[in-house]
Amino acid sequence: MKSFIQVDRDSHFPIQNLPYGVFRPHSGGKPRIGVAIGEYVLDLSEIERAGLFANTGIDEDRIFAQPSLNAFMALGRNTWKKVRNQLQFLLSEDEPTLRDNEFLRNKAIISQKDAELLLPAEIGDYTDFYASKEHATNVGTMFRGKENALMPNWIHLPIGYHGRASSVVISGTDVRRPRGQMKPAGEETPIFGPCKQLDMELEMGWFIGPGNEQGKPVAIADAEDQIFGLVLVNDWSARDIQAWEYQPLGPFLAKSFATSVSPWVVPLEALEPFRVKGPNQDPTPLPYLQKNDASSFNIHLEVYLKSQEMAEPQKIVTTNFSYLYWSMAQQISHHTITGCNLRPGDLLASGTISGPEKEQRGSLLELSWRGTEPIEMNNGEQRVWLEDGDLLTMTGWCQGDGYRIGFGEVAGRILPALD
Amino acid sequence: MKSFIQVDRDSHFPIQNLPYGVFRPHSGGKPRIGVAIGEYVLDLSEIERAGLFANTGIDEDRIFAQPSLNAFMALGRNTWKKVRNQLQFLLSEDEPTLRDNEFLRNKAIISQKDAELLLPAEIGDYTDFYASKEHATNVGTMFRGKENALMPNWIHLPIGYHGRASSVVISGTDVRRPRGQMKPAGEETPIFGPCKQLDMELEMGWFIGPGNEQGKPVAIADAEDQIFGLVLVNDWSARDIQAWEYQPLGPFLAKSFATSVSPWVVPLEALEPFRVKGPNQDPTPLPYLQKNDASSFNIHLEVYLKSQEMAEPQKIVTTNFSYLYWSMAQQISHHTITGCNLRPGDLLASGTISGPEKEQRGSLLELSWRGTEPIEMNNGEQRVWLEDGDLLTMTGWCQGDGYRIGFGEVAGRILPALD
Repeated sequence: MKSFIQVDRDSHFPIQNLPYGVFRPHSGGKPRIGVAIGEYVLDLSEIERAGLFANTGIDEDRIFAQPSLNAFMALGRNTWKKVRNQLQFLLSEDEPTLRDNEFLRNKAIISQKDAELLLPAEIGDYTDFYASKEHATNVGTMFRGKENALMPNWIHLPIGYHGRASSVVISGTDVRRPRGQMKPAGEETPIFGPCKQLDMELEMGWFIGPGNEQGKPVAIADAEDQIFGLVLVNDWSARDIQAWEYQPLGPFLAKSFATSVSPWVVPLEALEPFRVKGPNQDPTPLPYLQKNDASSFNIHLEVYLKSQEMAEPQKIVTTNFSYLYWSMAQQISHHTITGCNLRPGDLLASGTISGPEKEQRGSLLELSWRGTEPIEMNNGEQRVWLEDGDLLTMTGWCQGDGYRIGFGEVAGRILPALD
Repeated sequence: MKSFIQVDRDSHFPIQNLPYGVFRPHSGGKPRIGVAIGEYVLDLSEIERAGLFANTGIDEDRIFAQPSLNAFMALGRNTWKKVRNQLQFLLSEDEPTLRDNEFLRNKAIISQKDAELLLPAEIGDYTDFYASKEHATNVGTMFRGKENALMPNWIHLPIGYHGRASSVVISGTDVRRPRGQMKPAGEETPIFGPCKQLDMELEMGWFIGPGNEQGKPVAIADAEDQIFGLVLVNDWSARDIQAWEYQPLGPFLAKSFATSVSPWVVPLEALEPFRVKGPNQDPTPLPYLQKNDASSFNIHLEVYLKSQEMAEPQKIVTTNFSYLYWSMAQQISHHTITGCNLRPGDLLASGTISGPEKEQRGSLLELSWRGTEPIEMNNGEQRVWLEDGDLLTMTGWCQGDGYRIGFGEVAGRILPALD
């Protein structure tokens, strides 16, 4: 499949991907919905206005002229598929409808450089899981020792907690180093000041589609129908604040000052060719969490750090989404088993994605083993935690035969704490 | 101060109160905003349409014809005060504007019986604290013993966690007993089934007004300006699910299946005559949590239980908001100290409100001391946890001289679990 729009082999956004996002043209106008294609955005509000979604069965008015994807997410997989098919048809190299309509092309196709990317959804609730066994084991080993690394519940259910929706920000937003209360080792009483153990967490998140009614759980067989698409997530964490506050009700301020997401939401359909089985689960989960089909995806993930002194970013993590022990479907089923309702636009995230090897650890906490093994940077600097001015960039893609299904990137720079 | 509308001495809604809510007349029409006065609702969308808010400086169009209070909450305390003053003026017994305008009165004043009450706000984020020392001590004693009852952090900061916004429901909504994963004592592996330890938590919540920009904490001196008003909250809890899931990231599914709130939001202004100091804080909190003014309120609180067999509800809790150790202002300041942003319509809640005496404990967990001291009901039944068909009702008020500032009630009945 090829588009009449030129797309490089290593572009994240070939016609096989077509991730959705919300953008505002620099030239003005309201936020609206588009898909990324190569270095361009196709403005779906213009495609809609031209009547080219007439065959998709959408009867809502101007659903792509809205400032969030929520209404489209609510329509469900059948409609998502029809829209995606229509977009692949319109963008394909042999189809003249858009290709040869200069007027429409000029209105509907703009360079990504000429657009500001915005949060793709109005996030009602944000839930963060803890689905990587390697991550949970690493953290548990550091805090409780090797023998008690995993809590007894961990292998039986996908541990998760409610995150903060208000502070989810789009890639490129600067992140102010938080101040807060902490109790450094050796201090008798807690102190107040800027976080000294600022960390990143490499995660992936997925936006929820139709959602479920309160009191009606989503069966595991239906869980993937709730996944509209995936993004990269950096769940910034203040480890010193976290260590002091988290008992007994879990992380609160340590993770609610900012969570960054990538702007392009990759449809689950685009990931189908990269479906893999995921880790073997032993013990076998309870029936409500059982799914025999392959329910993970082979997504290559990388993290780069660039300090103020560095000329080039340096890769500090290489890992893969498929290391995650609990699948997205299992996380969705578990989330709703009590009757808790998910709504269109809700964001669920995986928790830090770590793999078995050292370079596959998705947080500085693990990479520096709680500060005992500093990360050596190419320019001679060392990193244990993030420093002011550091630019952190996460990226990821599925490698196809001659094309990539990419997630773009989620980036953020650390600003110094307030005085 | 008296209204031309007849209000009984023990009514929760005299002219001194004027709580805001969202309602839909049974006779039809869209949800809109009103205030409760005696047994009536004053339809503010009609007052607005009649031009009677012209002197309040609101330039937004039809702010009271909206289906949530969010836009009004965003306007801040000066505007809230002007609107409240105008409403007290219009409703006062000596003022003819509304009193003698039969046409407007007939349109704008309807019986509460003729209206469906809805959620007062679109809740962006819901945060639940753990601000009662008596509650935290009781729970800690049961789970960790008397010597380690309070975690070391508890006396230094208001412990809180992110709750679930999607499942907050209005009083009167039935609550389906959740099913989930738990590990009963003596079992080798976890089981799946209906929650057997279903509990209530007596709390109060407050809706956030203007909010703060991400990265800009709310100083403690300004924190009360963020409080639009207060409601009663029942934070339904599945204790067996909670015990198994909560480590290390805190309560998740055990509290996200439903949270009930009362429909009338009592303005902070209405509570001013009932301001009290609150408990002495020792040790002195860090400066960002220090406030010398009285920052608690004398709000009498009661909980009633009525089983399917009982003819009348029975009071099982009598306590007071002023037992809370951490003030609302301290909770707001703490919540934002890292830069976390609050938005109009966000709901913060206190956590279970318990007092020093046994009947002042705000949860069944504490009242029955984890099942060891069943609650004796007047009809011979006993309660350790909630049973199917139980109706739980919480109420509360400030007792003035000849009038009450009441919160109405938050009620919910337990439905049996799904098969």
